[in-house]
Amino acid sequence: MFSYIDGGVTAPKGFTAAGVHCGIRKNRSKLDLALIKGEVLCTAAAVYTQNLVKGAPILVTKENLQNGHAQAVICNSGNANTCNADGEEKARQMCEIAARAAGVKPSDVIVASTGVIGQPLPIEPIANAEQALGKALSLSGGSDAAKAIMTTDTMEKSYALECTLGGRSCRMGGIAKGSGMIHPNMATMLCFLTCDAAVEPAALDKALHLAVADTFNMVSVDGDTSTNDMVSILCSGLAGNEAIAEESPSFAPFVEALTDLCRTLSRDVAKDGEGATKLLVCQVTGGANDASARAVAKSVIGSSLFKAAMFGADANWGRVLCAIGYAGVPVNINQVDVAFSSKAGEITVCQNGAGIDFSEELAARVLKEDEITVSITLRDGTSAATAYGCDLTYDYVKINGDYRT
Amino acid sequence: MFSYIDGGVTAPKGFTAAGVHCGIRKNRSKLDLALIKGEVLCTAAAVYTQNLVKGAPILVTKENLQNGHAQAVICNSGNANTCNADGEEKARQMCEIAARAAGVKPSDVIVASTGVIGQPLPIEPIANAEQALGKALSLSGGSDAAKAIMTTDTMEKSYALECTLGGRSCRMGGIAKGSGMIHPNMATMLCFLTCDAAVEPAALDKALHLAVADTFNMVSVDGDTSTNDMVSILCSGLAGNEAIAEESPSFAPFVEALTDLCRTLSRDVAKDGEGATKLLVCQVTGGANDASARAVAKSVIGSSLFKAAMFGADANWGRVLCAIGYAGVPVNINQVDVAFSSKAGEITVCQNGAGIDFSEELAARVLKEDEITVSITLRDGTSAATAYGCDLTYDYVKINGDYRT
Repeated sequence: MFSYIDGGVTAPKGFTAAGVHCGIRKNRSKLDLALIKGEVLCTAAAVYTQNLVKGAPILVTKENLQNGHAQAVICNSGNANTCNADGEEKARQMCEIAARAAGVKPSDVIVASTGVIGQPLPIEPIANAEQALGKALSLSGGSDAAKAIMTTDTMEKSYALECTLGGRSCRMGGIAKGSGMIHPNMATMLCFLTCDAAVEPAALDKALHLAVADTFNMVSVDGDTSTNDMVSILCSGLAGNEAIAEESPSFAPFVEALTDLCRTLSRDVAKDGEGATKLLVCQVTGGANDASARAVAKSVIGSSLFKAAMFGADANWGRVLCAIGYAGVPVNINQVDVAFSSKAGEITVCQNGAGIDFSEELAARVLKEDEITVSITLRDGTSAATAYGCDLTYDYVKINGDYRT
Repeated sequence: MFSYIDGGVTAPKGFTAAGVHCGIRKNRSKLDLALIKGEVLCTAAAVYTQNLVKGAPILVTKENLQNGHAQAVICNSGNANTCNADGEEKARQMCEIAARAAGVKPSDVIVASTGVIGQPLPIEPIANAEQALGKALSLSGGSDAAKAIMTTDTMEKSYALECTLGGRSCRMGGIAKGSGMIHPNMATMLCFLTCDAAVEPAALDKALHLAVADTFNMVSVDGDTSTNDMVSILCSGLAGNEAIAEESPSFAPFVEALTDLCRTLSRDVAKDGEGATKLLVCQVTGGANDASARAVAKSVIGSSLFKAAMFGADANWGRVLCAIGYAGVPVNINQVDVAFSSKAGEITVCQNGAGIDFSEELAARVLKEDEITVSITLRDGTSAATAYGCDLTYDYVKINGDYRT
């Protein structure tokens, strides 16, 4: 139904992007300011953190998106612009700078910041970069934009796909950053999506919420829900399809493609979690309902003990059962099966809530791979859920023991 | 109103204790089986884990305590006797062994196990130790009992205090173990309390719940609620006081003394968390109500990012605010103050939800101590709560990356 292509956020028709080093970060080789521009005014939607502490950019973006339209995204790394008295003022200044650089209206700008909380954002480096940013906007700038929003991320997260909607070839692309303070509740740290399909604002909002519920909201790196989480999407409509409404036959395939793109970005966020050496995927089947399947999957993927065991390739399934038991939803614990799998094979370690004999040697082989799936079979119903996380490592502690310096 | 004394669980009148090496653990120098005996049948109460997965010993103890009385405690380390098909049978066998060793009825035994989940408990080593265990019971055996219940604990947790209740001098003592999978919901991993005051069963049950709510239930080492958590108390009544009922003038001072003893043990559990180098205390004042003050304190003490920052002596108060923001209770975030303190001094780092200038040098000095208090002032009401935790360190990862081998 869709295929992945190159190009990230500039793959869809009508988008250019840029990433520059403006100086918020001291390391001159680290890009720290991203801009994405739509050729035309776009239908837009976003989901935001549910943390009570909200970054100033979140508040300004919410305001700007009230009319369901936007035309540009600006985002800096190195400073979260959160818990500062002058935060909203600075976020509005960023919108003005982006507006001048991209030739759009300040009220049509989505603004975001990521980095340390509680240190005043220096606006001068951003203001000084206005011209360079505008000049750098290009069809090949998606990769620089992806790099500019990274903090402790070790790899660029940029994807695009092509699908057919209403008989027209449409494209969507996205960039994301993750790494630490990742336990999204509405969205992951930051993800910016573009699309050239025409989609009505209400349908776009619903589609984004549906996609995020199964993807970014199922990721946990460290259980900490950031103050600046945001996933946004801009749809240029330049693909020429008939605008998608909720009742359109194209709505379901649009959600499907969008969810797949978000899942691909989410998996990267989990895999590139701070200090991580492994992507952990927790697949739950047989749940009583969607909410309980999700709760079980997130409880296991969030358990520090499970994460540390996976780091050590230790098939300690007791920790999986323990985390199911405190997930806060009713589960028939005596009917739970647990299996581990990876490229190296699959091994069942627990049946009906009790241990079974298994080959520790095979288990160690399975768990030494860098992508592990723990499959949990419940016997409570027919709902399924998948959560994404990573192992807990020495490097997570190292990175976070001294983040500010 | 009370003073700490030596002796642990054998300090109150009418209790002997023992700890031996029976062989569940391979290291011969590690005691792994504890017994506490009451000279007379005691009033007894316990609180248990709220994990849906409950260790077999929990189920058997609940049964035995239905009549509000017990006379002995048996506990092994090295195996949790949880998620095994024959778990309850083995737990009952442990009660019979304890009963013969102590000369009491099997139905008057509190049984507990701690260690790895999902491996069948070998009962032979325990059965073979029956005589040795009985012989070892003595007034000076409290310390051995405390040692025998330790798993990854690095220090013995054993305390006793003396207070006056109803005009009589009464004593209470307790031993506890903690270290990992510590995020109790009703009780910490394991704590056994003794007391020589006479207390009516209903009053004892209520007093224990009150004491635990403010102490063990406010501890988090790693966010994982164990399957085997239990806090139990035996009251011999040999102090000669008039039996304490809920309406008695002695009830409040009894609860106060019991809470203090539980707090002392809880702090040790937090301080000796797996891999910990620091005790972290989170004091919340000005909460809208008890529940929200507790939720805020537990959210901060449980944040991996806050814990890692404390390990690195990094005054990253943004992480404190972030954790307040996702605590799940309404808080006026713009009116929150945050300060750090230790033996080296006190430093306010955030006022009214925003950063203030502070000396990084003083902050580093304050945070380099091994006991740190983070004080959070809310402006929502008059409720207070204190939570106890520890820093997140390389050693936590090391210990849990390869726990079973």
